[in-house]
Amino acid sequence: MALLDQLIEALRVLPGVGAKSAQRMAYQLLERNREGGRRLAAALEAAMQRVGHCERCRTFSEDPLCPVCASAGRDASQLCVVETPADQLALETATGYRGLYFVLLGRLSPLDGRGPRELGLDRLDARLSEGEVQELIIATSATVEGEATAHYLVQLAGKHGVRASRLAHGVPLGGELEYVDRGTLAHAFGTRQSIARTPPAGAKE
Amino acid sequence: MALLDQLIEALRVLPGVGAKSAQRMAYQLLERNREGGRRLAAALEAAMQRVGHCERCRTFSEDPLCPVCASAGRDASQLCVVETPADQLALETATGYRGLYFVLLGRLSPLDGRGPRELGLDRLDARLSEGEVQELIIATSATVEGEATAHYLVQLAGKHGVRASRLAHGVPLGGELEYVDRGTLAHAFGTRQSIARTPPAGAKE
Repeated sequence: MALLDQLIEALRVLPGVGAKSAQRMAYQLLERNREGGRRLAAALEAAMQRVGHCERCRTFSEDPLCPVCASAGRDASQLCVVETPADQLALETATGYRGLYFVLLGRLSPLDGRGPRELGLDRLDARLSEGEVQELIIATSATVEGEATAHYLVQLAGKHGVRASRLAHGVPLGGELEYVDRGTLAHAFGTRQSIARTPPAGAKE
Repeated sequence: MALLDQLIEALRVLPGVGAKSAQRMAYQLLERNREGGRRLAAALEAAMQRVGHCERCRTFSEDPLCPVCASAGRDASQLCVVETPADQLALETATGYRGLYFVLLGRLSPLDGRGPRELGLDRLDARLSEGEVQELIIATSATVEGEATAHYLVQLAGKHGVRASRLAHGVPLGGELEYVDRGTLAHAFGTRQSIARTPPAGAKE
């Protein structure tokens, strides 16, 4: 196979890249940006080779400890459990959370051979037994497997007497009710929050 | 900068890949397909390094002559001029054309420093003077610069007494008139084709 065809084929490992975009990418790099293509090759090779996992939280890291775990400024009493490094990044950029993370790198799915051991839950168990963690914030996804994983995590927290909490589920901000799926809507209705009566303007609390 | 951030940055040289998709690509490769990532790195490096241009038609080729130019089965009396290797591929897959190609790798744009020399038109000049080419099929794009390039090519063909032709412009097949842009519509109306009267069924021609 010609080098160009090999490149087009290889580009298709990227998510969301089909035959047509792969071809466009290959042609554009060859025509206009060989230097960028070479830099990409080097960055890919280095990352695939040298990016491993943080010893403590299992997120991607090239050092034994990731920057979050290594930081002295984080609150070790809160531990947030997420499924993937991408989920961790999403929380880190969206919230002001200053605690630590634990990354499962998957969810419980015994049929696919992903049990507690594969998700590092033995390590999480050990960590909770150290006694430093006060709250386990469960941020697994709202799917069947994510729920099963959350259930397991609640049990684990209970075993160590650690408070467990879970991300709120409901209607997304800015979401029009008409377009919210039925499951979410039923859940949001069932778990509706009572609203504190607002005191009249100017009143003392 | 961390290797992961370097990879995300480097992925953005790909056309159509912004910060968000680059991040998704990097995470997915690291999580699920390091082998594919390594293959992509190798394919990129090899292609950027070793894919050059065909000596005869200037398309991408790792050999001195591209497969089309090297083929004995192509009709050397027809020469189709395109702007890019991607255009060549599009024609090659859509039409049954069996002639040869000449790839400009751009269009005339003196302000950007792309004159006849940069487009290899001196080489095309020499080739037309060999006398083998009977028809020069001009398939530059229908933009201002593409038209200027086409005009230059028509002159060149005339100089060597070679017949010049141009891809037809008009309403795309399957295009609804309502959604065709005004320029195309005006052009298609102005260059309308007369329809031969169909003889009654069964009549002899």
